[in-house]
Amino acid sequence: MEVMQVLHMNKGDGDASYAKNSTVQRKIMFTTKPVIEEAIMKLLRTNIPESIGIADLGCSTGPNTLLLISEIVDIIYAKCCQMGHSPPPELRVSLNDLPGNDFNNIFMSVPAFYNKLREEKGTGVGPCFISGVPGSFYGRLFPSSSMHFIHSSSSLHWLSRAPSGLESNASTSLNKGKIYISKSSPQCVLDAYLLQFQNDFSLFLKSRSEEIVPGGRMVLSLCSGVSTDPPTEENGCYQWELMATALMGLVSEGLIEEEKVDSFNVPFYMPCLEEVKLEIQKEGSFIIDRIESSDIDWVGSVEYMDPTSATQTKGQREAKKVRAATEPMLELHFGSNIMDNLFRRYEELAEDYLSNCGAKYTNLVISTIRKG
Amino acid sequence: MEVMQVLHMNKGDGDASYAKNSTVQRKIMFTTKPVIEEAIMKLLRTNIPESIGIADLGCSTGPNTLLLISEIVDIIYAKCCQMGHSPPPELRVSLNDLPGNDFNNIFMSVPAFYNKLREEKGTGVGPCFISGVPGSFYGRLFPSSSMHFIHSSSSLHWLSRAPSGLESNASTSLNKGKIYISKSSPQCVLDAYLLQFQNDFSLFLKSRSEEIVPGGRMVLSLCSGVSTDPPTEENGCYQWELMATALMGLVSEGLIEEEKVDSFNVPFYMPCLEEVKLEIQKEGSFIIDRIESSDIDWVGSVEYMDPTSATQTKGQREAKKVRAATEPMLELHFGSNIMDNLFRRYEELAEDYLSNCGAKYTNLVISTIRKG
Repeated sequence: MEVMQVLHMNKGDGDASYAKNSTVQRKIMFTTKPVIEEAIMKLLRTNIPESIGIADLGCSTGPNTLLLISEIVDIIYAKCCQMGHSPPPELRVSLNDLPGNDFNNIFMSVPAFYNKLREEKGTGVGPCFISGVPGSFYGRLFPSSSMHFIHSSSSLHWLSRAPSGLESNASTSLNKGKIYISKSSPQCVLDAYLLQFQNDFSLFLKSRSEEIVPGGRMVLSLCSGVSTDPPTEENGCYQWELMATALMGLVSEGLIEEEKVDSFNVPFYMPCLEEVKLEIQKEGSFIIDRIESSDIDWVGSVEYMDPTSATQTKGQREAKKVRAATEPMLELHFGSNIMDNLFRRYEELAEDYLSNCGAKYTNLVISTIRKG
Repeated sequence: MEVMQVLHMNKGDGDASYAKNSTVQRKIMFTTKPVIEEAIMKLLRTNIPESIGIADLGCSTGPNTLLLISEIVDIIYAKCCQMGHSPPPELRVSLNDLPGNDFNNIFMSVPAFYNKLREEKGTGVGPCFISGVPGSFYGRLFPSSSMHFIHSSSSLHWLSRAPSGLESNASTSLNKGKIYISKSSPQCVLDAYLLQFQNDFSLFLKSRSEEIVPGGRMVLSLCSGVSTDPPTEENGCYQWELMATALMGLVSEGLIEEEKVDSFNVPFYMPCLEEVKLEIQKEGSFIIDRIESSDIDWVGSVEYMDPTSATQTKGQREAKKVRAATEPMLELHFGSNIMDNLFRRYEELAEDYLSNCGAKYTNLVISTIRKG
C-alpha cells in the first residue's frame, strides 16, 4: 500500500468528514499549547529573526489547521511586542500533509485568516505568507535552514508504510485475523512494527535537521503506547482490535476474504516514551528540552463542529471519529461497498467495549532544540 | 462580486473541467517558452544562486501546471550543467492561484513529478520543493526578496474585480445588455475598464518588485486588445459579446431578469501593448527586456486531453472551453440552474459566428528585469 497516496482524512465538511470529527485532535492541540508557547518564547529569547519560518506537519484539514497557526502567530507577536521589537518579523507559514489531504478546504479559509489577523492586530503585524506543501514528512519538505519552529500533532504515529515482512497469504499469516499489534501477535510482529517506526522516525529527524536552523525548535505530539514484554493488550490499540473483529465478522459472512484481512496491517505505531527518546538520541541532531506524557479521553468529548453528537451514544461518536480518520485507507484495501457495513459493526463493538472499558490514550509531547 | 472567492476554473477532471479544456493555454505556454528560456539564461549568466525561487502566478489546475514547471526546471539544470556548476542549486517552486483553485488536483501529481525528475536527471538534480500559495497576485504573495524568476501565463487579463462605477439598476445601466466593452459601450465604460487595469497592474508590479531580487526576472503573457478610439469591435472580445447575446436570450424568455445582466460586468481586460508598457514604466521597478505580440488561434486546436473533441464542431469546442474557464463565476451571479441552457445558446451562437469569422487572439509576452 502506497501510504503517500491513500493516507488522508475524509475530505469536505460532510457528516463523515474529518473537519467535523476532530475534536480529540483539537483537545490534544490545546494540551500541547503551553509547550509550544514555552518553545517559542525560548526560541525568541535572545534574537528575533527578520523572517521566521514555521511549519505544521500533518496539518490535516478543517478548522483545527488554521486555529493552530493562529495560536502560534499570536504567541510570536506577543513576544515581539513584549520585547519592543519593531518592525514585526515576516512570517513564512508552511502547512504540510500528504498529497491526498484536502488542501482546497484549508485554502478557502486563508483570506478570512489574513483579514482577521489584520483586524485584530492592526499595524502590529508583519507580513504573513501561508503556503501548502504536499509530501511525506519522512523525507525533505523545505529548503535548507529555512525553518525556525516546526510543529506536528497527532501525525507521527502514522508510519510511512505498513511494516515490511508482514504481508503474507492466509496460510503463512504472521498476524492472523489482526491488523495491528495484538495480544495474539507473535514477537516478530512487534519487532517489525518497532523497526519500521525507528527507520521512519530517524528519517524524519534527519530531514528536519537539514531544514531547521541551529537553535530552532520542534514540538511534536503523538499517540503513545506502553512498552511491555511479552506484549499485552496495553501496547496494542483497542480501536484496531475492534476494527479487526469487525473485519473478521465480514469474513465470517463471506463478504470479504480472510486473506484480505491477513494481508492488511495498519501503517500506525504508538511508540513508548523511551523508544522516542532513544531514537532522538541516536540520530543526534536534536536535544530534548522537555518530554512528557498525558492521558487523553478519546471518546468523552462531544464534537463541537457537530451539534448532533451530543445526543449520540459513545459507540456512535467513536465510530464516526474512527471513520473520518481511516475510511480512505480501508476503502482502498477492502472496497467502498462494505464501508457502511464495516462501520455499523464497529459501532456495535465500540458500544459494547466502551460500556465496560475506558478509552484513554497516552499522548506524548516532545520539545526539542536543533543543535549547532 | 468578490473575485477572490469565485474566479476559478472548473475543478476536477470531468468533461467540463479546465484540466480537460486548456489546450489553448498550453499552446500559449509553448509560444512563450523561448522567451522564458532566454530570460532564465540571462538570469543565470553570471551567477547561479545556491537556492533559486521560482513562481507561477495563476498556475490554475490540470496537466499544464506541472508541465510548465518541468520546462523551467529543465532549462535551469541545462544551464547549470553547461556552466559546470556543482552542486546543482536548490529550487523553491511556488504555485500560486486564487484560493478557489483546485490545488488538490495539482498536489496529487507532485509525487510523480518528483519521481520523474529523479529518474530523468539522476544526481544532476538538486533538491526541489513545490508549494501551493493561495491568494490574489494583486497583493503580496511571497517573502521579501525571495524570488528569482516569476512567470504568469493567461492570467493577468483577469482583473481583481469588475470596474467600479458600472454597477447599476436597469434604468441607469451604463453598459446595457453587455457584460464587457462592446461596440455599443459608451466611452465611460472603456475608461472604467482601463482604470481598473491600471490600478490592478501597478499593484501587481509593486508587489512583485518587493518579492523579486535585484536582477531577477519576470515573464508575463496575457490576452491583448487593440487600442482604438472610438471603440470598435476589435477592442472588445467576441466571446463576451456572444455571452451577452446568450444571456439576453434568456432574458427575453423570462428565465433571468434583465437587471441581472445589466448589473454584471466581467472582471477581465485585454490591454494593448502600449497600455502594458506605460504601466511598467510608470511603476518604475522593472526594465522591459522584450515585449512582443503574436496571434493565437483560440478554436482551431483539438483538446489533447479529450479525444472526443476531434469529432466536435467548432461551436461545441468553443462552448466547452469557455464553460471550463467561466462557469463558476457566471454560476454565482446567474444561478446554476440556467448554466446548461446558457452554454447551449452560447454553442449555437459560437457555431454561427465561427463559420463566418476567425477566432484569433493577440497574445502579449513581456520579459522584464527587476531594477537595482
